[in-house]
Amino acid sequence: MSAVSLDDYAERARAVLPPAVWDYVAGGSAAEVTLHANRSALDRVAVLPRVLAGVSTANLGTRLLGRPYAMPVGVAPMAYQRLVHPDGELALAAAAGAAGVPYLASTLASTPIEQVAGTGAEVWFQLYWLRERALVRDLLDRVVAAGCRALVVTVDVPVLGRHPRDLRNAFRLPAEVIAANLPGGRDALAHAGAPGLSANDAHTDASFAPALRWADLAWLREHVDLPLVVKGVLDPRDAVEAVRTGADAVVVSNHGGRQLDGAPASVTMLPEVVDAVGDRCQVLLDSGIRGGTDVLRALALGAVGVLVGRPLLWALAVGGEPAARDALALLAAELRDALTLAGCPDPAAAGELRTVAVS
Amino acid sequence: MSAVSLDDYAERARAVLPPAVWDYVAGGSAAEVTLHANRSALDRVAVLPRVLAGVSTANLGTRLLGRPYAMPVGVAPMAYQRLVHPDGELALAAAAGAAGVPYLASTLASTPIEQVAGTGAEVWFQLYWLRERALVRDLLDRVVAAGCRALVVTVDVPVLGRHPRDLRNAFRLPAEVIAANLPGGRDALAHAGAPGLSANDAHTDASFAPALRWADLAWLREHVDLPLVVKGVLDPRDAVEAVRTGADAVVVSNHGGRQLDGAPASVTMLPEVVDAVGDRCQVLLDSGIRGGTDVLRALALGAVGVLVGRPLLWALAVGGEPAARDALALLAAELRDALTLAGCPDPAAAGELRTVAVS
Amino acid sequence: MSAVSLDDYAERARAVLPPAVWDYVAGGSAAEVTLHANRSALDRVAVLPRVLAGVSTANLGTRLLGRPYAMPVGVAPMAYQRLVHPDGELALAAAAGAAGVPYLASTLASTPIEQVAGTGAEVWFQLYWLRERALVRDLLDRVVAAGCRALVVTVDVPVLGRHPRDLRNAFRLPAEVIAANLPGGRDALAHAGAPGLSANDAHTDASFAPALRWADLAWLREHVDLPLVVKGVLDPRDAVEAVRTGADAVVVSNHGGRQLDGAPASVTMLPEVVDAVGDRCQVLLDSGIRGGTDVLRALALGAVGVLVGRPLLWALAVGGEPAARDALALLAAELRDALTLAGCPDPAAAGELRTVAVS
Amino acid sequence: MSAVSLDDYAERARAVLPPAVWDYVAGGSAAEVTLHANRSALDRVAVLPRVLAGVSTANLGTRLLGRPYAMPVGVAPMAYQRLVHPDGELALAAAAGAAGVPYLASTLASTPIEQVAGTGAEVWFQLYWLRERALVRDLLDRVVAAGCRALVVTVDVPVLGRHPRDLRNAFRLPAEVIAANLPGGRDALAHAGAPGLSANDAHTDASFAPALRWADLAWLREHVDLPLVVKGVLDPRDAVEAVRTGADAVVVSNHGGRQLDGAPASVTMLPEVVDAVGDRCQVLLDSGIRGGTDVLRALALGAVGVLVGRPLLWALAVGGEPAARDALALLAAELRDALTLAGCPDPAAAGELRTVAVS
Ligand SMILES: Cc1cc2nc3c(=O)[nH]c(=O)nc-3n(C[C@H](O)[C@H](O)[C@H](O)COP(=O)(O)O)c2cc1C
Ligand SMILES: Cc1cc2nc3c(=O)[nH]c(=O)nc-3n(C[C@H](O)[C@H](O)[C@H](O)COP(=O)(O)O)c2cc1C
Ligand SMILES: Cc1cc2nc3c(=O)[nH]c(=O)nc-3n(C[C@H](O)[C@H](O)[C@H](O)COP(=O)(O)O)c2cc1C
Ligand SMILES: Cc1cc2nc3c(=O)[nH]c(=O)nc-3n(C[C@H](O)[C@H](O)[C@H](O)COP(=O)(O)O)c2cc1C
Repeated sequence: MSAVSLDDYAERARAVLPPAVWDYVAGGSAAEVTLHANRSALDRVAVLPRVLAGVSTANLGTRLLGRPYAMPVGVAPMAYQRLVHPDGELALAAAAGAAGVPYLASTLASTPIEQVAGTGAEVWFQLYWLRERALVRDLLDRVVAAGCRALVVTVDVPVLGRHPRDLRNAFRLPAEVIAANLPGGRDALAHAGAPGLSANDAHTDASFAPALRWADLAWLREHVDLPLVVKGVLDPRDAVEAVRTGADAVVVSNHGGRQLDGAPASVTMLPEVVDAVGDRCQVLLDSGIRGGTDVLRALALGAVGVLVGRPLLWALAVGGEPAARDALALLAAELRDALTLAGCPDPAAAGELRTVAVS
Repeated sequence: MSAVSLDDYAERARAVLPPAVWDYVAGGSAAEVTLHANRSALDRVAVLPRVLAGVSTANLGTRLLGRPYAMPVGVAPMAYQRLVHPDGELALAAAAGAAGVPYLASTLASTPIEQVAGTGAEVWFQLYWLRERALVRDLLDRVVAAGCRALVVTVDVPVLGRHPRDLRNAFRLPAEVIAANLPGGRDALAHAGAPGLSANDAHTDASFAPALRWADLAWLREHVDLPLVVKGVLDPRDAVEAVRTGADAVVVSNHGGRQLDGAPASVTMLPEVVDAVGDRCQVLLDSGIRGGTDVLRALALGAVGVLVGRPLLWALAVGGEPAARDALALLAAELRDALTLAGCPDPAAAGELRTVAVS
Repeated sequence: MSAVSLDDYAERARAVLPPAVWDYVAGGSAAEVTLHANRSALDRVAVLPRVLAGVSTANLGTRLLGRPYAMPVGVAPMAYQRLVHPDGELALAAAAGAAGVPYLASTLASTPIEQVAGTGAEVWFQLYWLRERALVRDLLDRVVAAGCRALVVTVDVPVLGRHPRDLRNAFRLPAEVIAANLPGGRDALAHAGAPGLSANDAHTDASFAPALRWADLAWLREHVDLPLVVKGVLDPRDAVEAVRTGADAVVVSNHGGRQLDGAPASVTMLPEVVDAVGDRCQVLLDSGIRGGTDVLRALALGAVGVLVGRPLLWALAVGGEPAARDALALLAAELRDALTLAGCPDPAAAGELRTVAVS
Repeated sequence: MSAVSLDDYAERARAVLPPAVWDYVAGGSAAEVTLHANRSALDRVAVLPRVLAGVSTANLGTRLLGRPYAMPVGVAPMAYQRLVHPDGELALAAAAGAAGVPYLASTLASTPIEQVAGTGAEVWFQLYWLRERALVRDLLDRVVAAGCRALVVTVDVPVLGRHPRDLRNAFRLPAEVIAANLPGGRDALAHAGAPGLSANDAHTDASFAPALRWADLAWLREHVDLPLVVKGVLDPRDAVEAVRTGADAVVVSNHGGRQLDGAPASVTMLPEVVDAVGDRCQVLLDSGIRGGTDVLRALALGAVGVLVGRPLLWALAVGGEPAARDALALLAAELRDALTLAGCPDPAAAGELRTVAVS
């Protein structure tokens, strides 16, 4: 039977994935307080539908970073997608392409960016800043050459958050899953697990420059001629700073509860960020989005769109590209219903809906 | 043993109904957040009783839409009542008649409106706007001819909400349960279920006009000489619009958590709606009412009455008309106690009670 | 082993009592929302202790209605105490006397007020207004003659609340447990149970005058020369009315969640009532008090004392007078600790403590 | 496998300790409401990380009472540490010394202060005021002679809180665990348990002066030339009084939920205390700290550091000094990550972070 909610994919993925891989994807950092807060905070946002608005079937089309997409949803950048399915990034990107939504390719993809771009999807490249600036330049050149539509700089990973589940599982990447965009991705520390140590963390810390500053972002802004997205902002002051530095969009995100545990749910900060940046840049939201209602909540609170992470990885794990397509189609159907039920002809109209806090 | 609370009927109905029918009735849309919020929000409304008010036994009589009823309660419009009991609408309408409360007959009734009206109950007709206006006219003519007392336009169904339970059960109506008010009700899509698809949804979407506007309501207001009730309002701005369009009453409702999931509990919006419409129209509440205390809560927050849905369908399922009568009698007894304990001689007095939010 | 908290008595009583008797005592009305709210609201009151206050062991002595008592606690009036132990009222009153706290004797006691007064306890008489005023006069004469110290008029029982547990159990009093203060107490309806009907309710409704008014209270004030306590007030406006009518004290109470379900926890209303009456009358609290910390909470919020109900009945059930003494001694010990830990030399000092709401 | 969170030590300690010892350490007073509130209140403090702050690895070094420490964490004073491991205080103090954090030695230590100081750790001595002032003087002389760095006066123990678990277990100290700093520690009442009585309480009450006043603290301030810390303050008015009396620091604490049950979580009062004392004295927090995120929360709310209690005792129980070192190293690693992820170069920077309340 086909899935009737995105959560179905989680259940099914759990049944097919090795437990340590499940944990790597599902888990959060530390006590997973932020991971759980993401869901409960979304559930506490109630949206007031409007009636008799003359809406028959809401139109989902939207513009993100100046380009048209089929719905206000993107595939969140997620590392090492071959970990859950042999087709990995190629399958998920192809599904995104078919669904008309942007695919955010991770620096830590297990498939080179050129191949991902070759799927025909609209690809936005997510950048983790490498320790050597020369490598950053090389990577950016490849990104532009591959025809990526945007550059997404993830700013909430000065170090990787501690993931107790991975530490308990002494999780390491299998030999065949490599950081395909990086030189030496194959032999990286990430494959040399040791008990009590997540090999993944060691690798990441070794490869990435942790002491990034706004000046580095400004440098990027100057040297790359792509729309610039800053991913991982929670404090409105940082959102304002991103605007000042020339960001075209910010993603309000706590990295799906995988970085600073104890950070607020990203939806909690969304209204303040939207307020702070006004219409000077677009605001996206991620962390905890699990269905069309959640997209509606984000839109009602002022986001222009959302990114969805784990659910799409679950779908990929369950059935490769076809399942990922199904998942995106399901999300589109749910969002269409939600908008229509709320009396909104399109995503923009949702910005006029009132919300109330459920106590 | 007779039931001591309306919830007893739920338990008993669950034991006698096919699981898929139970799910169809009990379920809500999407993640069922709104379904659950309806209950928890009601439980968080605390009502302050008054003492030594000289009330011996509260009088339950009330006026709704200008007519006298035995208590401030109506039977919510619910489709296909023969699904749960062979006597269906006839039994529940008869019970309502015996109890002196209005019976709201659904457009999607499995018994023709003429027969329902023949039970002698005070019938209010609930309208789903059909795609062809000629059919709407025909239906309205029949409604007026049958002696219905009011026209209730349900405005929160531009499309049917997605019901995961029904999708999982591939729920479809049995052949003998038809949309008896509609031409072609018998052979409708609703009977052709397919895995992963709720046949019911397909049917509804095919029959109903989804892009209704306030102008359509105005047209109705002009062409039908019955009190007009707008059912399914949550945003106070819509309530005001309903008043402007000539509504005699609004029902603050989220359709029992069956339409937009993520909408607030209807009781959450009640005070604002009451405030917004003042005494220009009557305000009713539904969604989650399960006992006399809930009716008291609604009255204390400014409603003139409530509609009760599922509990009466459970009673019908359990024992046809006699059980439905018992259920209504139980509700009356509970409400009489609640009013008396609160020091209210009658429903109107409850509007003077203070409420406090339980945190 | 002796009990270390009052809850221990509940557990033990449950083991020794017939289930229907347990339910009669433990249960609340309707959905028992108020019953549970009593506890959770108390737990949400946090009290800020003061340090270095020079308190070695707090002194518990207090004055209630102008008389000295060993602690700011009274035994709540509870009907039919022989239901749980053959020594019934005599045992619990004797324990109260030994503990130096007032014993509130119910109109519905299963032992005549004269015998209860004979235990030497300070007895306050709790009045349910009988249908015939002549009977009320007789009863009051006996109460005064027996040397009772106060008259406590319970105002929250215009009718008995519906108790689903009793209805399910078709609960009725055993033949030997009678309303000993009332003429005809033995053969009352209370002994003739029928399925689905609580015999107790039938009896109460038959005996008591439900339509009491403030004027009746004024009549009482004039005709009885005892301190007057109004028990069962939640709305501050009623507390003010009680003061106007000459009450010496009010008990903020929801009858332990046994009357209007959906009423707020009594502690929720305490601060407002205290505010409203100022020092014109004393304010007591009951409903949910289960230990010394709860007494401290009540005192910190402005009560002059509390009544304790069920826990003392559990102790009585478990072991008669000795157990009831133990329970009161335990409560005294807990309160002494709580006051001392809070830096309060005596109950009055607790009124200066700050409280914060726990969210 | 080494522990990945401090909670791991709790789980393991539970497996190795006698149940009554586990209960003695883990338990709280009365209904343990405050014990649980400590955790839930911390989890409700969300901290907003800052991004692109140029922080590579946060520096944990901090100054407490004018001296440098490796991180803003101290080992909370805990009595009788030989109860959980034969090496007791010596092991935990040595671990603190190795970790560069202060070790707070309890008056009720099972190892004399001179030996504890001999481990080379920075020792702060925690004082319970003995009934005889001469004994206090002697003890203070020893404390100064032993080279302790600070005097910590615990002010929240006018009497010991009632611990139901200990009462149920009739908990008493084994013969070999004595109050080594006190004359007669070996034969104390603490070893003579009796059913229903915690021997520990009896002992404490016999030894300590319960009626302390601010004047006593002033006397101490005058007679001891060490930094003075007041431990156990919740009400801001007491914090101000502590400052007036010359305290160099206050510890906002409810004694880990072991004294007044019903007191607020200490973190609930932290911001007000910080506000009240301004920069006139340092503010530390304890009660419920279980990981680096909690330290970050405390710092963000204005504390200069925290004390950690039970988790370190669990580590000690599990594996003596090495496990205690591991636990402190784990906490340091977590805190380093948390600060880095929050964009803070050092603990002081965390004071600039915003927090939001999670509802
Ligand atoms: C397995 C996994 C890997 C991730 N890898 C990256 C990554 O390489 N780069 C990045 O910016 N975010 C990464 N994220 C975070 C996601 O982009 C996104 O912020 C988060 O997953 C959204 O929350 P959700 O999973 O609850 O939808 C990863 C998330 C997961 C679950
Ligand atoms: C099985 C079922 C069928 C329903 N059919 C209709 C309908 O045909 N028309 C309508 O306006 N509302 C319909 N409703 C919604 C009810 O009128 C009402 O708003 C809702 O049930 C109230 O919530 P409650 O069930 O919690 O009392 C239906 C509800 C249920 C449970
Ligand atoms: C079994 C039982 C019988 C009661 N009978 C009376 C009564 O006769 N008169 C009265 O004023 N209150 C009566 N009450 C209410 C108590 O006086 C008191 O308000 C309530 O029990 C306090 O709550 P608690 O039980 O949670 O402490 C009764 C309560 C119980 C549990
Ligand atoms: C077993 C145990 C013994 C304690 N003994 C003392 C003591 O002797 N002196 C003192 O000031 N606090 C004592 N405390 C309280 C701690 O110093 C500290 O305030 C508390 O443990 C902090 O809470 P946490 O355990 O949740 O971290 C003790 C706590 C425990 C758990």
